[in-house]
Amino acid sequence: MLRARWAEGARVCIGLDSDFNKIPGTDHRPGNERNVDIANTIVAFNRRIVESTRDLVCAYKPNIAFYAAYGTEGLSALHRTIRDIHAIAPDVPVILDAKRADIDNTNLGYLKEAFDFFQADALTVHPYLGQVAMQPFLNCPEKGIIVLCRTSNEGSGEFQDPHVSIAPGCNMPFYQYVAHRVTNYWNKNGNCALVVGATYPEELAKVRGMVGNMPILIPGIGAQGGDVEQTVKAGRDQNGEGMIINSSRAIIFAEDPRAETEKLNKLIGRSR
Amino acid sequence: MLRARWAEGARVCIGLDSDFNKIPGTDHRPGNERNVDIANTIVAFNRRIVESTRDLVCAYKPNIAFYAAYGTEGLSALHRTIRDIHAIAPDVPVILDAKRADIDNTNLGYLKEAFDFFQADALTVHPYLGQVAMQPFLNCPEKGIIVLCRTSNEGSGEFQDPHVSIAPGCNMPFYQYVAHRVTNYWNKNGNCALVVGATYPEELAKVRGMVGNMPILIPGIGAQGGDVEQTVKAGRDQNGEGMIINSSRAIIFAEDPRAETEKLNKLIGRSR
Repeated sequence: MLRARWAEGARVCIGLDSDFNKIPGTDHRPGNERNVDIANTIVAFNRRIVESTRDLVCAYKPNIAFYAAYGTEGLSALHRTIRDIHAIAPDVPVILDAKRADIDNTNLGYLKEAFDFFQADALTVHPYLGQVAMQPFLNCPEKGIIVLCRTSNEGSGEFQDPHVSIAPGCNMPFYQYVAHRVTNYWNKNGNCALVVGATYPEELAKVRGMVGNMPILIPGIGAQGGDVEQTVKAGRDQNGEGMIINSSRAIIFAEDPRAETEKLNKLIGRSR
Repeated sequence: MLRARWAEGARVCIGLDSDFNKIPGTDHRPGNERNVDIANTIVAFNRRIVESTRDLVCAYKPNIAFYAAYGTEGLSALHRTIRDIHAIAPDVPVILDAKRADIDNTNLGYLKEAFDFFQADALTVHPYLGQVAMQPFLNCPEKGIIVLCRTSNEGSGEFQDPHVSIAPGCNMPFYQYVAHRVTNYWNKNGNCALVVGATYPEELAKVRGMVGNMPILIPGIGAQGGDVEQTVKAGRDQNGEGMIINSSRAIIFAEDPRAETEKLNKLIGRSR
């Protein structure tokens, strides 16, 4: 699905981080929240974005945290939004950004949540429990499993930068070890991808050098400050593709989300 | 809350991993699921366990994955279960085992999910994004933040065992580095704890040696095969406490959950 989108020249991933409190035109004064129909407001807000951008995007990526903050009402809005996306833009994959990971028996629950209930096409996960635990996800060849590698946030170096020794005389930063394991061991079904933040272009180039043409989900453009040209230069694969470049707040809360998406899509296309 | 429970001799943590498909007395044949009231079934199952065990436990720990598998209906059952626990056993803390972690802005959503919506007293989290990202959680002095350190599953050594160099001539296994950072940097509000599986008693003893009297959540007893006496010997603090020893399936799906809890509680007490 991703490759077909890229071939169409549609390269933006829109992060539907649709925090109810930031949706304009509703009254968010404390206590008043409960007088607004939270679910309907979020669903309508997202639908408008999807309808106006579907030809420009390679993926939609709702982060579940912004919905879970409003409990079952928010999650029901997410459920309806993903149904809307599949109806309005059936050729655009939905990445559920939920950063799940537990032991294998428990992951079956998360698998049902992401793929049966929410009907997502891909899921982001933490690497920490290792391949054996993550096997239930990896065993779904038709679903994308996107593993955190180098996250976009300040302070991500605390655990991701220290060098690990993996054999006598051989060591590498921890995030590269994650890239190494996922590329060479986890990816037997060819359904893996990695997360590397646009805020770390050098690390992105390193990871690209290790993973061949594996897709890389790249958050951190826009509100977080990542530079598009630098990102594309560091992140593109041999075909000049392979990047799921995400922008969230800078697009969804813009006055004209389509114009912002178009601008970013052109910039990515030109930088290739 | 934990210390008060331990002082009462109540030391078992019951993992409310109440998978609807395993609750006896309902018809789970494929397709028939929708004819059973999922939420009411789960809530009643949990309530019976809480009512019969409240004087023996130091915590209840529902793992959200088993509820999220059934979408908003399952999550609504979890919401009602936690409300039930606070009503039936107001002195017993609820640990929401959700293993969340994202960048700081996004963690505000997970924080609302766990503490505002679900009304949990503590939350399990992944360490991978680092302290700066996790600050919203760490800033809640009245909530327990329980960080994955050495998980109980097979294959947890993939990322948790390799040695990291943290200074010239100084290196340690990755899980110990997590224990080190959490103990010495993350825990300014005294609200941190760690997860170390009972299936790795040597690693548990190492971690206890590093963290003083910090509580350690210890899954892996029972169905996963951890030994209680070995666990207590490796995990106890200077007061012979400090352990949140969790058992899930072996208690909740037992014919007599209270008898199983009592047995485990006595065994922990004796092993101290």
